[in-house]
Amino acid sequence: MHRTKVKVVEDALDANNTIATANRADFDRAGVRVVNFMSAPGAGKTTLLERVIADLDGVRAGVLEGDVQGSMDADRLAHLHVPVTQLNTDPGFGGECHLDANMVRSALPSLPLDDLDLLVIENVGNLVCPAEFRVGEDARVMVCSVTEGEDKPLKYPLMFRTCDLVLINKVDLLPHLEFDVEELLYNLDAVHPGVPRMLVSAKTGEGVEAWREWLMGVPVPANA
Amino acid sequence: MHRTKVKVVEDALDANNTIATANRADFDRAGVRVVNFMSAPGAGKTTLLERVIADLDGVRAGVLEGDVQGSMDADRLAHLHVPVTQLNTDPGFGGECHLDANMVRSALPSLPLDDLDLLVIENVGNLVCPAEFRVGEDARVMVCSVTEGEDKPLKYPLMFRTCDLVLINKVDLLPHLEFDVEELLYNLDAVHPGVPRMLVSAKTGEGVEAWREWLMGVPVPANA
Repeated sequence: MHRTKVKVVEDALDANNTIATANRADFDRAGVRVVNFMSAPGAGKTTLLERVIADLDGVRAGVLEGDVQGSMDADRLAHLHVPVTQLNTDPGFGGECHLDANMVRSALPSLPLDDLDLLVIENVGNLVCPAEFRVGEDARVMVCSVTEGEDKPLKYPLMFRTCDLVLINKVDLLPHLEFDVEELLYNLDAVHPGVPRMLVSAKTGEGVEAWREWLMGVPVPANA
Repeated sequence: MHRTKVKVVEDALDANNTIATANRADFDRAGVRVVNFMSAPGAGKTTLLERVIADLDGVRAGVLEGDVQGSMDADRLAHLHVPVTQLNTDPGFGGECHLDANMVRSALPSLPLDDLDLLVIENVGNLVCPAEFRVGEDARVMVCSVTEGEDKPLKYPLMFRTCDLVLINKVDLLPHLEFDVEELLYNLDAVHPGVPRMLVSAKTGEGVEAWREWLMGVPVPANA
């Protein structure tokens, strides 16, 4: 009797991680670095993308826009002449509150992977569930806005803990807010010590050059 | 042979609605009006509650605080000397992104319902899933902040469509933003024509009196 012993790998039991791994393999094969871009609604993800995405010297970028409904963000990026694909999560009652690996997989045939060096996946605006679902990304970037309050890392710790870069946006509004940047950074370090962070303003352009350089530096997949 | 014909009611198949109905019956029996209070993270729910909850003339109010983790908002309300109960959604991996009827039901024994006229349930900060789950409320109030952009009703339509009042918060920041209130109201009316709305500022107090009066006017349950 031929017997095969199969070792159960915990990740393999999780359908999302299995599909995320397949996505990652496809991205790697095409030599595309992938950033999962997340924030609360209205923190400024799309504006921060508008600021940099068309101007990444030598890096051919594309965007996968995740939204519950509509294509407003994709439309905003259209004038930048980079490939933009819209993914809507609304087939259910109220729509899914996050992208998962299978949704992203369903979009792969619509993405010109061979013509891209970098793909930014703009997730649904939400600080909870998007952090739970890997989609095949190389890196995770989150935006938190100074209008949201200093307590957010403590209230949504998984999101802040699992990201590789935190963009602290709307710093142009600081003179008009009772907001303590040091307190935010203290709370950030409490849940994710030392995570890279940048103070930025999509409005004034402060910090945007550093954000552009960071995006250009996302490592090329080893298999490319 | 005795035959009973059971009519299948669609709502009865939905476990959440069944439990929400039970919650509602318990609230009604105690004569407590219940408001489900929702917004994106950092829109200002807790501050708007701090502004009014201790000062509702003749109305005995309590708060059920829903958070993924921690008790920061409940702690903020502690000095107001109203009953505050904390409900955390984090037993899972990253925590649930919304309250559902069963979570609220689990908190009922901790709530002094017989000593309350009004219970405000502060939901998890999220514009998607909280709108999908009734918890037994009489009314839904949502907060959207002018820092979030004019497009939010179009991007998160279920939330805006199912609420009974929209508080448009942080209007004190309008002079410092490129924000068109008329465009927001146009988008709001596109998804929920004529829904009551108030321009408010938790910081300056603008509109807070109207918000207080609205809260005091939530109708008493018929069965009370």
